[in-house]
Amino acid sequence: MSVTPAPDETPVGLEPSSGSVASPARFSVWALAALPEVVPGDDLGALVGDAIERDGGLEAGDVVVVTSKIVSKAEGRVRAAADREAAITEETVRPVASRSSDHGVLRIVENRLGLVMAAAGVDASNTPEGTVLLLPEDPDASARAIRAALVRRFGVEVGVVVSDTIGRPWREGQTDIAIGVAGVRVVHDLRGTTDTHGREIRVTQSAVVDEIAGATELVRGKATARPLAIVRGLGRFVTPDDGPGARALVRPAEDDLFRTGSEESYEEGYADGYERGVTEAFDSERDDDDTPVTESY
Amino acid sequence: MSVTPAPDETPVGLEPSSGSVASPARFSVWALAALPEVVPGDDLGALVGDAIERDGGLEAGDVVVVTSKIVSKAEGRVRAAADREAAITEETVRPVASRSSDHGVLRIVENRLGLVMAAAGVDASNTPEGTVLLLPEDPDASARAIRAALVRRFGVEVGVVVSDTIGRPWREGQTDIAIGVAGVRVVHDLRGTTDTHGREIRVTQSAVVDEIAGATELVRGKATARPLAIVRGLGRFVTPDDGPGARALVRPAEDDLFRTGSEESYEEGYADGYERGVTEAFDSERDDDDTPVTESY
Repeated sequence: MSVTPAPDETPVGLEPSSGSVASPARFSVWALAALPEVVPGDDLGALVGDAIERDGGLEAGDVVVVTSKIVSKAEGRVRAAADREAAITEETVRPVASRSSDHGVLRIVENRLGLVMAAAGVDASNTPEGTVLLLPEDPDASARAIRAALVRRFGVEVGVVVSDTIGRPWREGQTDIAIGVAGVRVVHDLRGTTDTHGREIRVTQSAVVDEIAGATELVRGKATARPLAIVRGLGRFVTPDDGPGARALVRPAEDDLFRTGSEESYEEGYADGYERGVTEAFDSERDDDDTPVTESY
Repeated sequence: MSVTPAPDETPVGLEPSSGSVASPARFSVWALAALPEVVPGDDLGALVGDAIERDGGLEAGDVVVVTSKIVSKAEGRVRAAADREAAITEETVRPVASRSSDHGVLRIVENRLGLVMAAAGVDASNTPEGTVLLLPEDPDASARAIRAALVRRFGVEVGVVVSDTIGRPWREGQTDIAIGVAGVRVVHDLRGTTDTHGREIRVTQSAVVDEIAGATELVRGKATARPLAIVRGLGRFVTPDDGPGARALVRPAEDDLFRTGSEESYEEGYADGYERGVTEAFDSERDDDDTPVTESY
């Protein structure tokens, strides 16, 4: 392998250990063995650390990806399934779109974390019968706490990502994204660098942590109890500081071209247009009625 | 590593060679060394094969990811930069949203390939000065052709993905997705399988090929001339047949809750509502006018 980082991609933060990585431009991803069921009050930093120790430990520059599910379970973010709709409402900051189906009404909303998700991220898969799980209270804080525990225990600087599964407009299938981040650059900002033809790259910011989370989904498998994965070889994205967290990836609704669903936007426009149409029509009727009077002046 | 695939994740297609992969639940990703500039008429299958041979060849179950950029270049999908707007229009099937900025009007459209993208995917980065590049004519066909060449040359069954970079609603940063696929399962359908609590998983379909494309973006780097990456260890997603291609990931617009931008939907609703309001107002005026006449019957 003759691949080396280009000068404009100078690594920041830590170099990965060269132990199992042939080059900075190569990385590997694996899932750790299944964990026992996580219960409220579990010390997640210790649990994750134990699992990693059984797997052979960490190297500097590793990124540990933890599914939001076990974070929520440790935090006791569980509700009775009967309270699912109330839980969704509780998590909702702003409705975005909705669709009726055989299973009821699917609500796509912006939740407390700024994430636009179906059912606000409230989920029933891989949870005990009769319960649903809310997203973690503050996944960035959870990532920071787990990171601190891992750095303390293994004595190397690593990054931590809390991942969740999300649908997208326009494309079938779901992907995993980062909803909590500590110590990993959230975007790789290429703006201002030059391309292979010496021209400035104007817009590209790669959502590095989302791509890392997505990669771990490939080894994890939703149907199994493997909530932990390690990504080794991307140390150039690991930073000494915890950084701004996944919250920095949230685009403010007012900047978004798709802040509400097409149907919802149409209906809002229809109501406003209707009101305006009625008002103007009556105004013009009145003007017509007034016309002779005006002329009689 | 004690991780093995769960029974409900029985691999289909090829097993990865165990040469460099400790377990089916581990994979690695690397970029190949830079290619010389690709020009119209280049035999991409041969070029990609040469680069792979220099890198050490392929193993059964490998996925080769090729950026759309070099596919477009080989196909001569180049236009003068002055014709950029015409090129976007040419590629557009349906306008979706638009936004004005200092750089002009950004058009988000559904293009010929069913992809909803800014500027229909017409791009000026990493192209010769004064030119823009359109997306490949048929990226699924390109993936199939490259796959056939690689299988012939290396004598192993592998998958091929053609990747491109795309923005998303609601989240900052871009990720790479698959716009052409041959021989890789596009989604990992978990519907009907059971979760860790024995309950049926109802909705999850993982967009496997998008996650694979995104993973390779992490090693490639936009600013460099490394358009090729290999993913080794995900042979369970490689299929004997070419399969339906990336086209299968396109959700039909009529099924999409965000088929047009919020502003565009609002304006459409406003126009319809206005017309209705005016009509009803005049109708009710007429009804009022008619009232005495009606009573005089």
